[in-house]
Amino acid sequence: MLTFEVLTTQGQARRGRMTLNHGVVETPIFMPVGTYGTVKGVMPSALEDMGAQIILGNTFHLWMRPGLDVLEQFGGLHRFERWNKPILTDSGGFQVWSLGNSDGSGRKISEEGVKFSSPVNGDKLFMTPEVSMQIQRTLNSDIVMQFDECTPYDTAGHITTEDEARRSMALSARWARRCVDEFARGENLNALFGIVQGGMFESLRDESLASLVELDLPGYAIGGLSVGEPKEDMLRVLHHTAPKLPAHKPRYLMGVGTPEDLVEGVSAGIDMFDCVMPTRNARNGHLFTRFGDLRLRNSRYKSDEGPIDPTCSCQACAGGFSRAYLHHLERCGEMLAPMLASIHNLHYYLNLMREIRDALDAGRFDAFVAQFKADRARGV
Amino acid sequence: MLTFEVLTTQGQARRGRMTLNHGVVETPIFMPVGTYGTVKGVMPSALEDMGAQIILGNTFHLWMRPGLDVLEQFGGLHRFERWNKPILTDSGGFQVWSLGNSDGSGRKISEEGVKFSSPVNGDKLFMTPEVSMQIQRTLNSDIVMQFDECTPYDTAGHITTEDEARRSMALSARWARRCVDEFARGENLNALFGIVQGGMFESLRDESLASLVELDLPGYAIGGLSVGEPKEDMLRVLHHTAPKLPAHKPRYLMGVGTPEDLVEGVSAGIDMFDCVMPTRNARNGHLFTRFGDLRLRNSRYKSDEGPIDPTCSCQACAGGFSRAYLHHLERCGEMLAPMLASIHNLHYYLNLMREIRDALDAGRFDAFVAQFKADRARGV
Repeated sequence: MLTFEVLTTQGQARRGRMTLNHGVVETPIFMPVGTYGTVKGVMPSALEDMGAQIILGNTFHLWMRPGLDVLEQFGGLHRFERWNKPILTDSGGFQVWSLGNSDGSGRKISEEGVKFSSPVNGDKLFMTPEVSMQIQRTLNSDIVMQFDECTPYDTAGHITTEDEARRSMALSARWARRCVDEFARGENLNALFGIVQGGMFESLRDESLASLVELDLPGYAIGGLSVGEPKEDMLRVLHHTAPKLPAHKPRYLMGVGTPEDLVEGVSAGIDMFDCVMPTRNARNGHLFTRFGDLRLRNSRYKSDEGPIDPTCSCQACAGGFSRAYLHHLERCGEMLAPMLASIHNLHYYLNLMREIRDALDAGRFDAFVAQFKADRARGV
Repeated sequence: MLTFEVLTTQGQARRGRMTLNHGVVETPIFMPVGTYGTVKGVMPSALEDMGAQIILGNTFHLWMRPGLDVLEQFGGLHRFERWNKPILTDSGGFQVWSLGNSDGSGRKISEEGVKFSSPVNGDKLFMTPEVSMQIQRTLNSDIVMQFDECTPYDTAGHITTEDEARRSMALSARWARRCVDEFARGENLNALFGIVQGGMFESLRDESLASLVELDLPGYAIGGLSVGEPKEDMLRVLHHTAPKLPAHKPRYLMGVGTPEDLVEGVSAGIDMFDCVMPTRNARNGHLFTRFGDLRLRNSRYKSDEGPIDPTCSCQACAGGFSRAYLHHLERCGEMLAPMLASIHNLHYYLNLMREIRDALDAGRFDAFVAQFKADRARGV
């Protein structure tokens, strides 16, 4: 099941509430990414402590490992990974697409689906809209994403033309119908989202959306952004598309992005975000703070007794771990560095969304955005 | 300060209580190793939760990174690494010794001390008993270890002769006096332990001990075991030496060992142990359980819904994480695998010592040892 209610709006920005099989999600929300059934370096209990409401799993990766037999035995992903709140899974489309080389070789896309070799054991595999739905049903995802082709921004330097983007978008649209049919065969009570494609072309985005709206899905996502395009193209397509997504249904901007991107996305009317950036950057010593980003390896932090972010209440900052200590752990390659950094960055993202929700509740979203930009520009 | 009280004994085994500047330590005790100011992969809060009473730091490593300037600024290691309970630091002797190649080249040992090149930046450095005491004073370690030469079992295949072991032991004994002198110059209230050397030779162990007892130190350690010698040599020297250490002072067996070694050590009269085995093995998917050891990578665990150890109350076992899930995380190289495995293994070691203390309190240590051996032999 999925119910969604828009509680209040300011401009395009929306404050909402979504109810799923495994719980309630207050929006706008950031969803930590747990590719292989674990948000990298973070205990499920720590995710709960920092207020995570819903996390992602990756259909493609979980299909490869541990495999469907194990996930079926556990009755889905929740019990396997010890997470009892909602889970969203992607469709596997992006991963199958990423498997190819930059010139597109290494996997073969046809009307039927995508043929590729398992990166784990070389087995020849065939991913189709139907297979994606079956896997996500086994995972028992609260939110199931349609199988789509992620239209690339460029392929080996060749920027995707409008004709190419149209063909790709139309294929995703046909796959969406097959997903709906296969999804309907199951008895599960989860929610299937459609994904708007169309590359950098507004008219194609409109066409894609129109065909998906016909399917009357419980939620809609914008795919194919943050795939290498210039920032201004991303913002142009975002601001064109997001406000046109059905107003009474949740809107999800896939794979985006920086803290600035999230604020921009909310301003454009987006309700849901996911991105590997907080955890991936954490593992590279790149920390997000209210006053800009901080690179742990910088020797200026060698003897800095302060916390990562004096305004942060995460386990790292409130726990009294100093920048000097984290700098030291990072230099020594100690696991505790990515552990604390991942907790901090995820807490930063989740707290940013909490502050956005509070600002929307209080009717002061514009003032929040101005303060956010001023704070981030200040520098650590 | 250090006060030590033997509460009860059974055979050679002792149940004791040690009071240090940063708290009380119930013995026999296992001390998790935090080489670079972090027990690898484990939050300080998790260490407290699992009942760790005292942890180790490595003088040599901390001297290299973060360096004495930073540690001095933080007033010692406790505040830097966010651990407010007792800390024991080794002297750096073992590490300086390990720096050399297997033929002994790469560092130069003289009466004065050890010349070597920094493994971090190549700087020529000189470690002496005085320098070791000064560093450990900066660290503000509750228990300071004397600077010694760890007599090798063999050097490039040549087994250390009695003459070589005597020369090495005598050097460590002279260094002990210099440590006492330098230690006395400080105003710190911590405790300096002597280290009994002498290789595999009982008479040399006796000589070493006699010279250290003259110094009337607050505690005594057995060094130079678990350095590659056959197990029967280790046990022979342990059972010869441990009962001769002053009865009213804490006895510490350095760098040992397996769960079986710990039980054996307690039987021989040892009060304190440290070893990297629980954390290092955890990172290799080697888990300790009541019923024997478990190798996570074994495919027999692929769909095993049970916990690592059904009798364990650690965050991994009580948290409901299955062997199948841990096997999956391990296969995928996910950080959560060593995180949960490290928590489990340390909990296993700390709980083993807790059970030993309870058995000694209840006057049933022999029965405990018999049950321990039967359980461990049962197999997982």
